[in-house]
Amino acid sequence: MARTVVTLGELMMRLKPPGKLRLRQAQGFEICHGGAEANVAVSLAHLGVHSRFVTTLPEGELGTQALRFLRTHGVDTASIQRRPGRLGLYFMEEGADYRSGCVIYDRAGSVFAGMAAEDIDWDEAFENADWFHMSGITPALCNGTRILAETAINEARRRGIRISIDLNHRERLWSYGIGACDVMPAIIARADTLIAGRGDCLACLDMDGKGENGSPEWAASLSQKVLAAYPNLERFALTIRASASADEHDWQAFLDTRETQVFSKLYTMKHVVDRVGTGDAFCAGLIYALLERQPPQDAVNFGAAANCLKHSIAGDVNEVMVGEVTRLAGTTAFGRLRR
Amino acid sequence: MARTVVTLGELMMRLKPPGKLRLRQAQGFEICHGGAEANVAVSLAHLGVHSRFVTTLPEGELGTQALRFLRTHGVDTASIQRRPGRLGLYFMEEGADYRSGCVIYDRAGSVFAGMAAEDIDWDEAFENADWFHMSGITPALCNGTRILAETAINEARRRGIRISIDLNHRERLWSYGIGACDVMPAIIARADTLIAGRGDCLACLDMDGKGENGSPEWAASLSQKVLAAYPNLERFALTIRASASADEHDWQAFLDTRETQVFSKLYTMKHVVDRVGTGDAFCAGLIYALLERQPPQDAVNFGAAANCLKHSIAGDVNEVMVGEVTRLAGTTAFGRLRR
Amino acid sequence: MARTVVTLGELMMRLKPPGKLRLRQAQGFEICHGGAEANVAVSLAHLGVHSRFVTTLPEGELGTQALRFLRTHGVDTASIQRRPGRLGLYFMEEGADYRSGCVIYDRAGSVFAGMAAEDIDWDEAFENADWFHMSGITPALCNGTRILAETAINEARRRGIRISIDLNHRERLWSYGIGACDVMPAIIARADTLIAGRGDCLACLDMDGKGENGSPEWAASLSQKVLAAYPNLERFALTIRASASADEHDWQAFLDTRETQVFSKLYTMKHVVDRVGTGDAFCAGLIYALLERQPPQDAVNFGAAANCLKHSIAGDVNEVMVGEVTRLAGTTAFGRLRR
Amino acid sequence: MARTVVTLGELMMRLKPPGKLRLRQAQGFEICHGGAEANVAVSLAHLGVHSRFVTTLPEGELGTQALRFLRTHGVDTASIQRRPGRLGLYFMEEGADYRSGCVIYDRAGSVFAGMAAEDIDWDEAFENADWFHMSGITPALCNGTRILAETAINEARRRGIRISIDLNHRERLWSYGIGACDVMPAIIARADTLIAGRGDCLACLDMDGKGENGSPEWAASLSQKVLAAYPNLERFALTIRASASADEHDWQAFLDTRETQVFSKLYTMKHVVDRVGTGDAFCAGLIYALLERQPPQDAVNFGAAANCLKHSIAGDVNEVMVGEVTRLAGTTAFGRLRR
Amino acid sequence: MARTVVTLGELMMRLKPPGKLRLRQAQGFEICHGGAEANVAVSLAHLGVHSRFVTTLPEGELGTQALRFLRTHGVDTASIQRRPGRLGLYFMEEGADYRSGCVIYDRAGSVFAGMAAEDIDWDEAFENADWFHMSGITPALCNGTRILAETAINEARRRGIRISIDLNHRERLWSYGIGACDVMPAIIARADTLIAGRGDCLACLDMDGKGENGSPEWAASLSQKVLAAYPNLERFALTIRASASADEHDWQAFLDTRETQVFSKLYTMKHVVDRVGTGDAFCAGLIYALLERQPPQDAVNFGAAANCLKHSIAGDVNEVMVGEVTRLAGTTAFGRLRR
Amino acid sequence: MARTVVTLGELMMRLKPPGKLRLRQAQGFEICHGGAEANVAVSLAHLGVHSRFVTTLPEGELGTQALRFLRTHGVDTASIQRRPGRLGLYFMEEGADYRSGCVIYDRAGSVFAGMAAEDIDWDEAFENADWFHMSGITPALCNGTRILAETAINEARRRGIRISIDLNHRERLWSYGIGACDVMPAIIARADTLIAGRGDCLACLDMDGKGENGSPEWAASLSQKVLAAYPNLERFALTIRASASADEHDWQAFLDTRETQVFSKLYTMKHVVDRVGTGDAFCAGLIYALLERQPPQDAVNFGAAANCLKHSIAGDVNEVMVGEVTRLAGTTAFGRLRR
Repeated sequence: MARTVVTLGELMMRLKPPGKLRLRQAQGFEICHGGAEANVAVSLAHLGVHSRFVTTLPEGELGTQALRFLRTHGVDTASIQRRPGRLGLYFMEEGADYRSGCVIYDRAGSVFAGMAAEDIDWDEAFENADWFHMSGITPALCNGTRILAETAINEARRRGIRISIDLNHRERLWSYGIGACDVMPAIIARADTLIAGRGDCLACLDMDGKGENGSPEWAASLSQKVLAAYPNLERFALTIRASASADEHDWQAFLDTRETQVFSKLYTMKHVVDRVGTGDAFCAGLIYALLERQPPQDAVNFGAAANCLKHSIAGDVNEVMVGEVTRLAGTTAFGRLRR
Repeated sequence: MARTVVTLGELMMRLKPPGKLRLRQAQGFEICHGGAEANVAVSLAHLGVHSRFVTTLPEGELGTQALRFLRTHGVDTASIQRRPGRLGLYFMEEGADYRSGCVIYDRAGSVFAGMAAEDIDWDEAFENADWFHMSGITPALCNGTRILAETAINEARRRGIRISIDLNHRERLWSYGIGACDVMPAIIARADTLIAGRGDCLACLDMDGKGENGSPEWAASLSQKVLAAYPNLERFALTIRASASADEHDWQAFLDTRETQVFSKLYTMKHVVDRVGTGDAFCAGLIYALLERQPPQDAVNFGAAANCLKHSIAGDVNEVMVGEVTRLAGTTAFGRLRR
Repeated sequence: MARTVVTLGELMMRLKPPGKLRLRQAQGFEICHGGAEANVAVSLAHLGVHSRFVTTLPEGELGTQALRFLRTHGVDTASIQRRPGRLGLYFMEEGADYRSGCVIYDRAGSVFAGMAAEDIDWDEAFENADWFHMSGITPALCNGTRILAETAINEARRRGIRISIDLNHRERLWSYGIGACDVMPAIIARADTLIAGRGDCLACLDMDGKGENGSPEWAASLSQKVLAAYPNLERFALTIRASASADEHDWQAFLDTRETQVFSKLYTMKHVVDRVGTGDAFCAGLIYALLERQPPQDAVNFGAAANCLKHSIAGDVNEVMVGEVTRLAGTTAFGRLRR
Repeated sequence: MARTVVTLGELMMRLKPPGKLRLRQAQGFEICHGGAEANVAVSLAHLGVHSRFVTTLPEGELGTQALRFLRTHGVDTASIQRRPGRLGLYFMEEGADYRSGCVIYDRAGSVFAGMAAEDIDWDEAFENADWFHMSGITPALCNGTRILAETAINEARRRGIRISIDLNHRERLWSYGIGACDVMPAIIARADTLIAGRGDCLACLDMDGKGENGSPEWAASLSQKVLAAYPNLERFALTIRASASADEHDWQAFLDTRETQVFSKLYTMKHVVDRVGTGDAFCAGLIYALLERQPPQDAVNFGAAANCLKHSIAGDVNEVMVGEVTRLAGTTAFGRLRR
Repeated sequence: MARTVVTLGELMMRLKPPGKLRLRQAQGFEICHGGAEANVAVSLAHLGVHSRFVTTLPEGELGTQALRFLRTHGVDTASIQRRPGRLGLYFMEEGADYRSGCVIYDRAGSVFAGMAAEDIDWDEAFENADWFHMSGITPALCNGTRILAETAINEARRRGIRISIDLNHRERLWSYGIGACDVMPAIIARADTLIAGRGDCLACLDMDGKGENGSPEWAASLSQKVLAAYPNLERFALTIRASASADEHDWQAFLDTRETQVFSKLYTMKHVVDRVGTGDAFCAGLIYALLERQPPQDAVNFGAAANCLKHSIAGDVNEVMVGEVTRLAGTTAFGRLRR
Repeated sequence: MARTVVTLGELMMRLKPPGKLRLRQAQGFEICHGGAEANVAVSLAHLGVHSRFVTTLPEGELGTQALRFLRTHGVDTASIQRRPGRLGLYFMEEGADYRSGCVIYDRAGSVFAGMAAEDIDWDEAFENADWFHMSGITPALCNGTRILAETAINEARRRGIRISIDLNHRERLWSYGIGACDVMPAIIARADTLIAGRGDCLACLDMDGKGENGSPEWAASLSQKVLAAYPNLERFALTIRASASADEHDWQAFLDTRETQVFSKLYTMKHVVDRVGTGDAFCAGLIYALLERQPPQDAVNFGAAANCLKHSIAGDVNEVMVGEVTRLAGTTAFGRLRR
């Protein structure tokens, strides 16, 4: 495929006790790598898109291991820098039934947090790029990465590259004196596509829909507000999650292209394997479908099916191929053993 | 117990990533052994029946390991041959929620595929045998095993041994130029008991029932057709599976003895541990119950309860004892910890 | 917290095959430690209570390992003795779906079974104690531990320490010629708080409620009987479990303080991680709440939420903090990932 | 092969922490099964001998698991009884370098300790037997098993079966008031072959050789004493072990057939994988070679090579075939990868 | 035992790939906890000494897990503080044969690095203390911990507590603008016991011995210099390591009490299990022996035997009891299985 | 680095039981990927060389997994084809001490065995190539791969690319009616560099040296013969291995450039982690050094040090960087922990 998607962000190592053990019970950790924008890049690579991930990784073994992760999945790593410093980490405790899982970030002072806009050769980073994707996490980390994020948006825009933003609000991260509300609106104002859930809209945009949470009325009214406030946006994708327990989630998306408003299929997942990265899987699925010029209903269904499949895959990234997503999006017979 | 059941088929090594990992994510494999007819033999051994398995295994460590598997479970291995060659393998990816599992066969050119009817001393293989069981997999592998399967049926019939056939249709296997439709009818025409699901009947017999799939009308009409077409059959067991996801399956069987038509209990399994070999577990349960001269309702219930329990057991074989099956078949209180 | 709770009983090593494997399939065991009263002590320590566990452990490595378990969780081990002898063990097979789990005790002849009332310095054991908790397991083991249990109750009572008894009936254990009915009533007659389920009441007290099992009428009538028969009791907590399968349990408690009768919230657990020790988690939660002088409704809710969370935690003990229990007791939004 | 060897003794489950972890560090155990005479039976089965093991195993899952172990290795289990009771256990800590390993027996009160001579149908147990092997462990357990051992020897002798005894002295076991010195001489006096090390001879026979420990003079003089004191013995095999650390052992055997006195090759093992069962591997190798009528030098070399290989194999039993032992006994080029 | 030893330092989580895997190959980590002074505290607790560890640990799950580690081993944790922040980490790659292992510290910005002298209630920390031990790592971390270390020494000295310093030089850590040479001499000048290897003396004291490295002449001359320069020192322990490969180390210590100069036994370890913490194990052994008033030769032998045993134990801490150390120190027969 | 090395061959999946378990004991397999020429390509990538691997991999998950392996290590996979078919496998049993390891190939009928010379676009495969490396395994597989190998040599030669051949003789593979002696000489006659051990020379060239095996005289005389018979060769590297056990190997190489004859350092490895791929590690090291224009003594030392390090690394490939090899080649202090 000739399309090139670029994403920029932090890649962390994730450390998780096996199975349903709590962190305090752990005798060891399973590790994988992840980060919102890296997850999107990896998922796109699995979907056959040429995806390039821009970041800084530490010199030494832990940076090499992180780089190998990206190469394993076929991501273009040519624009990745290596600097002395530490790798961002996060510890994760998987929830179970009524017990919530949790994430403990240990990413302060990472080599990525010290990355500056000047470190990047933007021509190289955006070479042949059709699409640039970023999340609200990078500007949340520190003032330096905020500037980095804003510069990236500007550089992409200057080159006429399409831009998508996943709000991805993490309250705990915004701790350097500036709030999401101060930063994100200006970033959104330069994007083409916005992806967000209700909590993201409340925290970053101070907007909510009218009517019962999750209802068509509510979705339409929230979407209208967002699109009205940000006339640059071509489309707004609203993600809707409900969780009955750590193992059981409902997920659906709503896509408003100003012309059409469509809901995706609603997936009711009762045996969640790994909830992390499911939002990123939707972003990747949606970007893929939009690059493929799928009509809105197909595009949002493709993204939702990608999201649904991610719930069944261990790790942060969505290791599924186009055929698998399409098959799920088009069927109502689930879970047969293929042999 | 004085009853002897003989089964014939291929025994493979199964390689599966731990837990819900995809094959591409695997860093290692859990292994077990299995094969439709071997699974029946092992399950019968656990039910206390003297069961003999006839096959060819390779010389060397991998054949020895496979033989040990059978001995561990108490299967009579006296009629098993060892030849130079390779062991059939299959790789398995466990499904999860909306993601289907899959099986990748790597059994072409195995030592069993090269087994010829002449290799077997049929008098020895069928010594004291009361029952012979075979599935539709052996004739599907290659022309040689087709002849082997047909010979086995003839040799069993010549000795007056009761014969059961599990259609067990695998579309991908029939690749040597002859189709299931060309072969299976003649085999069924020499059997006493036929076990099949809807897909098997469609593919091998070109028959389906009338009415809603899974309904009593449908089952009765399909059964009538089958028994009408194959007057030799004493009974036909129709298996009915519905899967809501990879983790949630409904399962039920319908038994038609020409005199009585009965449904088993319907089991709704919501936390499937291992779906492989559940059909074989039903075959073994039904054969056991029939050898025990249980009335049709009890027999089909016993088989269905055996099938239900297999869904909760890792590996291809049903490691449950008669008491456990009977207890499940007779209760409505499930899952209490016994202490 | 200034409160001190003392419990007395046997601490065993538990040996369990990984995941859903049957005992006969095991190639290794995961181990943890547990025992009804030890579980209560550990759970209380996690809730911030000063809890002291009284027992005898064997000299040598296995006793040291058991002692480490208690120290890890912050239990006061100062009153624990070491003697030559063996550690009580139990083997556990986890159930799955329709297959029941089971426990095989291998605790006969343990060093605890040989513990005598004279071995204990009761002044030391009960120093600063506000509450003493014991279950019906200790008197079930052998005549010596029956006397030990009765002495413990008397010594606690003599010192004016509040006493709770969890009936915890295990039919298989009462094998030394005296039955639960002969022993438990006298013990209950000296307690302040009784915790029991329907089976316990039937077996030890020969009492049942009227009306449909689990209904408010039934609970009230059973409670009335119990409180009438044992005028010393300040309160009776009735636990109500229903299991749809090994993975799905409903759990609720009913608390009767003679003045008020309240049901806890009903928790419907669909993905049970470890069912063992859930009753003990309720006991610990209830004791904590009562020491905190919570009103009955809050107290029974706190205990039920603790019980609910224990279902999601591997091992015998409830490694949750007060905040987690309170959060669950006060919410209806379950299973969100905290990050 | 037409030869049948019978052994009698206790089969235990072994529980060992992974790798070099100490028992107190263990979070889980690797399990296998073993026992001196069972190890000999299994090793002989691997060498192609028909070997029958006589014992009592508990009813229930743990006994079934033990039985499966024997069947896996092809041992004849027809004379094994199942009784209610517990399985003997032992915990093992592997040594490392300068740190000694240790074994903690937990076998008191096992179902085998309760086995009586009358429980056995000796005609069935010794059917077609050419050889009977027993160790000094069975008489060490309790008075009942002492009588069982003496009866077994008498029953074997009455039938003209050849008898070998491995002294296998375990000081800690003789705790029922009778000492090895009181029991073993009478047993040896009815055997044809005796296998022992220096410590065994000292403890059971109060005999030692003259000269430097391990020297030819010492071996010859000790052997002379033993054969003089026990005129019934056809041969005496003296085993000589020296350990530089837990990982490095030297091992050699000396065989005296009254006519010839020969040393085996000396093996210097520098990377011991599992030291347990190495003596039993020698017994099995020697018995095999004697049944094969190998001359003394070949026989003792075969036994020593079997012993050497066992040091490289995890678990209690020697899973090697005749060809492997012969190849090692005949080569000086060790450790090449065969491909 | 009435003696109380206090140590102060950082406790980190160690993350290590299983077995001999390189960091870049890791799919998961085994975890344990360690830190020079914490290791000494834990080792002393295993030797039966009352040992108190003073540090700051982060709030939250990772701090709780670290605290549990200390409690598991019976260390007095009463003087440990919890603060918001991160836990120090280190990643470890185990060497193998000719491949060196390596440690990657990720401890910058940890909660301990932010600990200030004022945070500690010194009366409480040193209550009943007989001995205070610290290493050269704490002053190496940052300026704040340098002041903390110096304050601790002064506070201990003020109270007349005996003081031991392990130089433990880590070149990579001294990165805040002040060098070891600027700091350590003043600390040593207030201690009673100094423990160091050749590299430590060169880097921190700019001193070396005369003659061949490791020779008696060399050791004596280096010791003389040290004791001459630091007249406050009662004794100097010089540790001597030589490594032939990652798996094979020689280790010996030399103790100079001004009155006597003695070498310990030399241990030649050929199968090192875990090299980390062996120096700390020597410190703990020496402190124990000195508290026990053992004569110099016995004391240095006890310390060396403790060091030797640590090489055979996985993790940072020396989980051995007094009897094990004494047995090794007094024997020349190594590695026999005790059963 | 601007240099490009191309290798061509089969990439297999390796399946190995954990640790020292025998194949027959396996309950699971650790997997990795390897193959002589793929190993060289991966090792070169770790050394910073642009390396391209040419092969055919199967469609489907197992082929994707193999491809990921190559991408992980940074190998250029642009010339790899995907076809329907099976992946070559090999099972491996690790030796231990006196027990030899073994390899069981299961590669017959693989998709690579069906690869034809016409399948490859040689211009693309050899684009920018400076060096082509191949082993004697590809021509050994079947007649088709023999032609493939010969074509590859011709195509490389036509383009003036330097060619190295590692004889790598596997007796068991040459089973299609043509022998190594019939094929390899013509291949060598077109190469620049030949790498071989004594067994390879005997089997493929029918040549041996004079004098004691491994001695300088022997090496020189064998080298002379080879260089005389193949005047095209610029250099001959003779590899010399001696194994004392499965864990202890000596390894050295001898390089004859017609002008100079030099031995590398001799490495005595006493704790081999993984012996597979050590020869390939030497090839890669030598090729790297020659591309770097190192003088013969340095080049052979670099190759030998790379080989030595590979013995300490699990898996088939040598995951070491230039700095690590150089450091080992230049030191005599081994195994210190770097921290």
